[in-house]
Amino acid sequence: MQIKIHFADRLIAAIKQKGAPICVGLDPRLEQIPSFIKKGKTFEAAAEAILDFNKGIIDAVHDLVPAVKPQFAFYLQYGFSGVRAFEETCKYAQGKELIVIADAKCNDIGSTAEAYANAFLGEMDCDAVTVNPYLGYDGVKPFIEVCKKRGKGIFVLVKTSNPSSGDLQDLMTEEKFRNYEIMAQLLESWGADEVGKSGYSAVGAVVGATYSDQAARLRKLMPHTYFLVPGYGAQGGKAADVKVCFNKDGLGALINSSRDIIFAWQREHSERLFGEAAREAVLKMKKDLK
Amino acid sequence: MQIKIHFADRLIAAIKQKGAPICVGLDPRLEQIPSFIKKGKTFEAAAEAILDFNKGIIDAVHDLVPAVKPQFAFYLQYGFSGVRAFEETCKYAQGKELIVIADAKCNDIGSTAEAYANAFLGEMDCDAVTVNPYLGYDGVKPFIEVCKKRGKGIFVLVKTSNPSSGDLQDLMTEEKFRNYEIMAQLLESWGADEVGKSGYSAVGAVVGATYSDQAARLRKLMPHTYFLVPGYGAQGGKAADVKVCFNKDGLGALINSSRDIIFAWQREHSERLFGEAAREAVLKMKKDLK
Repeated sequence: MQIKIHFADRLIAAIKQKGAPICVGLDPRLEQIPSFIKKGKTFEAAAEAILDFNKGIIDAVHDLVPAVKPQFAFYLQYGFSGVRAFEETCKYAQGKELIVIADAKCNDIGSTAEAYANAFLGEMDCDAVTVNPYLGYDGVKPFIEVCKKRGKGIFVLVKTSNPSSGDLQDLMTEEKFRNYEIMAQLLESWGADEVGKSGYSAVGAVVGATYSDQAARLRKLMPHTYFLVPGYGAQGGKAADVKVCFNKDGLGALINSSRDIIFAWQREHSERLFGEAAREAVLKMKKDLK
Repeated sequence: MQIKIHFADRLIAAIKQKGAPICVGLDPRLEQIPSFIKKGKTFEAAAEAILDFNKGIIDAVHDLVPAVKPQFAFYLQYGFSGVRAFEETCKYAQGKELIVIADAKCNDIGSTAEAYANAFLGEMDCDAVTVNPYLGYDGVKPFIEVCKKRGKGIFVLVKTSNPSSGDLQDLMTEEKFRNYEIMAQLLESWGADEVGKSGYSAVGAVVGATYSDQAARLRKLMPHTYFLVPGYGAQGGKAADVKVCFNKDGLGALINSSRDIIFAWQREHSERLFGEAAREAVLKMKKDLK
């Protein structure tokens, strides 16, 4: 049997090898995919176009970044054909030695959470999945069990990047912590037994780049937790904003960018050069983060 | 174009027609499906067995209940083949005039939430979907937009039935409301513009049967919100516990039962009679709720 290396240790090794804490979000919007790739109007044709597009992006950036993050909803829109494209995208990316984070924000309780964990981390064999914590520990524990067994990781939503994330996450509790701060403390404790040689846990957190004061606070509350950071680029997060997500060791955060990279061709390139445009966008982001 | 009838009005008409506020959860666990239905060890075989099993259950109960609730994770476990079985299950149930609630507990922000809404309520054409509110209003609004356009509904998690649901949901805020009470008030306001002729909104809530004091409180906080109530039966909720989920008009709640119905054959029947056993279990539940 294959020896399972701890997820955070694997992630960190990949980040160091590539010299960039960058994750490329594979959120294919059919209307933004170059027209020469499109094949027709059926779901199958859409799914095929998405897969071809993703392969082009992966080919263009795989030597520059450690990870990709396909967002499940964009595939599920095309029914089971879309899910097949999702699965094949994950396999193709792993074949190019990329770490694959399934962005599904899934959640449920007990045996149903286990079913989601088996789906994304078992049968589809992604390296990590994003998880929503609204249901509390028994919505997260089944994922942690699968992580332990299979050398996988999760990133649990703590403070998200969207404008109304504060509706629930920012509410002040009577103990004078905000909800996201309480979630952070819970998460650091839930992941405490899953810390790898690197000092980081397989239980990570999603922390938006758009709220940098909160991110700085969260960095202190979760010293052993790796952050997956959406919101850089198109959503408005800047290099200065994401800086606070890193620990002093220069580790602790993986910065995601989706639209700015995969649809970079729309800005100035011919659609045939969508891969080259994505590569350029990654190199620019790399420079920006340095 | 087909006239879209308001979701809550449709649901209530179906509940009245069937004389039972019961939803049958279609959570197929392959190991509990009668062996004569199983076809082999591949994902395709598993998906085929699940579909055949679901059809048997639907045939046996469709004249007794208004709705079914397939849980997406149990299908996704078998990859895209499982998702195809999910889609075909939904179609088959709708062909038998059942309302289909996709239990996916999905969530994301902005255009990605829209993609989930399009997936479940658009392309797959389910009648409603369950939604997680951790991301706040802009994680829910895209679903409401699709509901409005297509006569669909959502059920947003407020107080879930699992043991650790209180980790986040029960925290007391400095305004002296618990998080689930605040979510309830937000939800009632988010759904205020979507109230149908029946007086109920297309924006519903998930309220667990296992916490009846909280459910009673929530019934008062959300007078126009339909409750989808899991936790009855196998999880421990009793008829007395779910009573508080109804308004004085006898409406306002749809009680779900999954394992107790679909796997009723395991208690005393031969596996060939799994449909009959499910039917008996529904009749027993109907009597119990009266």
